[in-house]
Amino acid sequence: MRNFDEHNITEAVLDRLASTRSQRLKHISSALVRHLHDFVREIEPTQQEWEYAIDFLTRTGQMCSDTRQEFILLSDALGVSMLVDAINHRFPGNATETTVLGPFFVKEAPELPLGSVISRPEDGPALLIEGSVRSLDGLPLASASVDIWHADADGYYDVQRDADELSSRVRVRTDENGNFWVRGAIPAAYPIPNDGPVGQMLEAQGRHPYRPAHVHFMIAASGYETLVTHLFLANSDYLDSDVVFGVKDSLIERLQDTQPGITAHGAKVEHPTPTLRRDFVLAPAR
Amino acid sequence: MRNFDEHNITEAVLDRLASTRSQRLKHISSALVRHLHDFVREIEPTQQEWEYAIDFLTRTGQMCSDTRQEFILLSDALGVSMLVDAINHRFPGNATETTVLGPFFVKEAPELPLGSVISRPEDGPALLIEGSVRSLDGLPLASASVDIWHADADGYYDVQRDADELSSRVRVRTDENGNFWVRGAIPAAYPIPNDGPVGQMLEAQGRHPYRPAHVHFMIAASGYETLVTHLFLANSDYLDSDVVFGVKDSLIERLQDTQPGITAHGAKVEHPTPTLRRDFVLAPAR
Repeated sequence: MRNFDEHNITEAVLDRLASTRSQRLKHISSALVRHLHDFVREIEPTQQEWEYAIDFLTRTGQMCSDTRQEFILLSDALGVSMLVDAINHRFPGNATETTVLGPFFVKEAPELPLGSVISRPEDGPALLIEGSVRSLDGLPLASASVDIWHADADGYYDVQRDADELSSRVRVRTDENGNFWVRGAIPAAYPIPNDGPVGQMLEAQGRHPYRPAHVHFMIAASGYETLVTHLFLANSDYLDSDVVFGVKDSLIERLQDTQPGITAHGAKVEHPTPTLRRDFVLAPAR
Repeated sequence: MRNFDEHNITEAVLDRLASTRSQRLKHISSALVRHLHDFVREIEPTQQEWEYAIDFLTRTGQMCSDTRQEFILLSDALGVSMLVDAINHRFPGNATETTVLGPFFVKEAPELPLGSVISRPEDGPALLIEGSVRSLDGLPLASASVDIWHADADGYYDVQRDADELSSRVRVRTDENGNFWVRGAIPAAYPIPNDGPVGQMLEAQGRHPYRPAHVHFMIAASGYETLVTHLFLANSDYLDSDVVFGVKDSLIERLQDTQPGITAHGAKVEHPTPTLRRDFVLAPAR
């Protein structure tokens, strides 16, 4: 096979995939070739534009490090992450809705007891983060793993600082009643890192790089789908223009003012404390 | 705007492009979002597959260096480079056909006089490379810039060796009759670099990584479209399965055996020498 032109090359590349061993990879590869070629045929890039695209992708890869994932930012900013999230979470009934993982998740977060202070004083005003984990029919899920991470009052995550010390990030286990509580800090709205190729793209597209203030959760319990979501602060800016398209009404919470005493979730409160509270509902494993 | 699901997110992202200043970038961005989302909707990637894709793109970017361009290899292996080439070279009449630039072009090649020996003895058996540069109506183009580069007899380019020294690579200018000639070496067929993500992709797709033996040319003359092409050696393997889909019948040449004397293009030959010969025809600038 030779003499490929703009009319026959797509079929030629698809033919070349005939020996792909995995049927799944064969489907993904052929779909990639068809959609990518359709894109190229629609925009008819000049050689210079193609070179720019090669350079853009190269710079995006080279911006990545242990603490920076520029390709996730690109996926987020193009709405791909939320689309993949939606496709994978056609959950039943009243299960808590999902949103994007984002690039700041750390696989090995510090495991601390319930009630731990997870933020440094300089991370911002204290915030009680508490709630429960339950099944669709309201059964409390004991010993569920709850990862919580959030930005500080300046809008930065721990991994964006030079220091090695993690903060405003924890993994706890729910108690026998499915409850959890930790002491963090009120996070600010923030721009996604915009000193790289994705920032340049947003600038050229006339888009702001901001996300509304939120706290991330990843909740895992045996026999249930792992829940990756956020809670958004109801008084934040950018709820209607989140750069990564992640906001859902069901995930917006108004901070409550908790008075001294023991909360319904079991947290001991000594001074009036702003509180982010949510009873999460996990879908059964598929 | 919030509450995006798999049905409405594409429109939401397209709406967000409304303020893109450049109309061209707006078109490219919206086409990218539409085709990329269509691709995702067709294959319905799992979260793990999405993470694999992020990692694949990251590793592809991080494989790139001054002498290695893994994203060009990816574009080549998916047929995108040849498609972009075809779209940009709907040339008239008898203009020489184009093919891919490839990842081994060096912008600042050594500029040497006509007749120079451009290959080291260890690059392989001597090869006279000669020809002319002409317009569509046969007018010789004097002082045209002719970049020539090729692999050695082991299938490697100079930039793939550790040494700094360039070889089998040159920029010459045509003489007053539009002719050029240099002394290189007979190149071998070779695998594209396959120790990175693109090699892993080809392996998983059951594809070999080989290109048939060829010599690259980039020819530029004022008032004419710059010609980027190869000449393929007629006796090479892989002419029908070039991993980057670059072979065209019109670019295949049989090596000729030139006898001692002065060739029609002006080369002085002292011993019988295998010769790659072509009269190139440039299209007028658009």
